[in-house]
Amino acid sequence: MSDLQPTFILVRPQMGENIGAAARAMLNFSLTQMRLVDPRDGWPNPRAVAMASGAAGRVLDHAGVFPTLPEAIADCAYVFATTARGRELTKPVMTPERAMEHARALTASGQKVAVLFGPERAGLENEDVARANAIISVPVNPDFASLNLGQAVLLCAYEWMRQTGERPPEVVGMARTEFASLLEVEKLGDHYEERLSEAGFFFPPTKAEGMKLNLRNLWSRMPFTRADVQTLHGMLRQIVRHRDKG
Amino acid sequence: MSDLQPTFILVRPQMGENIGAAARAMLNFSLTQMRLVDPRDGWPNPRAVAMASGAAGRVLDHAGVFPTLPEAIADCAYVFATTARGRELTKPVMTPERAMEHARALTASGQKVAVLFGPERAGLENEDVARANAIISVPVNPDFASLNLGQAVLLCAYEWMRQTGERPPEVVGMARTEFASLLEVEKLGDHYEERLSEAGFFFPPTKAEGMKLNLRNLWSRMPFTRADVQTLHGMLRQIVRHRDKG
Repeated sequence: MSDLQPTFILVRPQMGENIGAAARAMLNFSLTQMRLVDPRDGWPNPRAVAMASGAAGRVLDHAGVFPTLPEAIADCAYVFATTARGRELTKPVMTPERAMEHARALTASGQKVAVLFGPERAGLENEDVARANAIISVPVNPDFASLNLGQAVLLCAYEWMRQTGERPPEVVGMARTEFASLLEVEKLGDHYEERLSEAGFFFPPTKAEGMKLNLRNLWSRMPFTRADVQTLHGMLRQIVRHRDKG
Repeated sequence: MSDLQPTFILVRPQMGENIGAAARAMLNFSLTQMRLVDPRDGWPNPRAVAMASGAAGRVLDHAGVFPTLPEAIADCAYVFATTARGRELTKPVMTPERAMEHARALTASGQKVAVLFGPERAGLENEDVARANAIISVPVNPDFASLNLGQAVLLCAYEWMRQTGERPPEVVGMARTEFASLLEVEKLGDHYEERLSEAGFFFPPTKAEGMKLNLRNLWSRMPFTRADVQTLHGMLRQIVRHRDKG
């Protein structure tokens, strides 16, 4: 994996709280490169630090602050602009997924990539978007598009994580589980079949074979762990023991 | 494309504002089915409505409110639980991507799917997670995991949108099978718990609660069909009947 990661640039952000929330959203997905263009309330901003909590030291403290957008992107090879609404500007429009896939390829070849996020109220100006190479537009419900700054940052950071090589396996958690062997499931089936036969479960006799087959099939279809099999043996033993005492 | 979409269930949510924010996050990706389990400040909640703004009428106004989780999931065929930290419970853990892909396949075959989100401060209890079929865990930075309720809802809703785009649904095995509803599995669990209690299975008393939780977790982890559940009821009834005669 390349050490390079995209720089998220907040353009003329208004509320300190939102800068802090953006820093947290980034760090959730291991992004630490933030820049600010002309933050309304100056810099540093104690409200941003308070909201960022643990992300203050790792993101905000070394965020670059620039008076204008051209200065903030001067060293970048490729810039994405996030926008909510359509623009008249002729420019590629990508989903976050496609954009971060592209960003991944660019950074892997050593190029510096930036993603621009506009001010809370109005978003990026056309003039800002004009400086970008491509637009990122999140495909939201056209009848209800209300993503805020922190949410836009979160979704882009999430997509960056998805596109990087270090994706976790799709299904984890059961990986270290010891699943029951086929022999263990077979013996479980034997145990139940035996006790159920004694109890007259397989009735009428003409249907007994089909019922037994269905039951074998049920057991073998289940993703039992070894512990599950022990539990199921124990349950049956206890009920039978109780019966025989009773 | 199926009209069915997953139901997002907020379990014991605390702040009205967060309920409203969750409704907005959902509606951004066209999700409108919300349920609430025992909201701390009662229902309806004016703070939730204020925060939801345009999503109030389309999500909150017809949100179902339930006193307990089992009631809220009674008609669902498959339930995901979102959790931040690892659990001792043996249960499949999926990324939001994999989970919503699976949800897509399930809803496409007409099955009702729910996603559980825990209270803001502590998240879901083990007892809640035990009732789910699988866990959704967002692969965040292990050194900084600070996703809040609204962000977890947003990422799951976003993934749902991604999975319902142009791509055809993945066909999973047994997609046309009638799986048991959660209510049916809950009742199956009740039946076994009752008979096993009578038989003295949950022993010693200090371990009884843990044993019951494990057993609930075992049942909910299994991909039972309705027919399987009937079979398992029938087995237990027959063994007990034999006991009472014997």
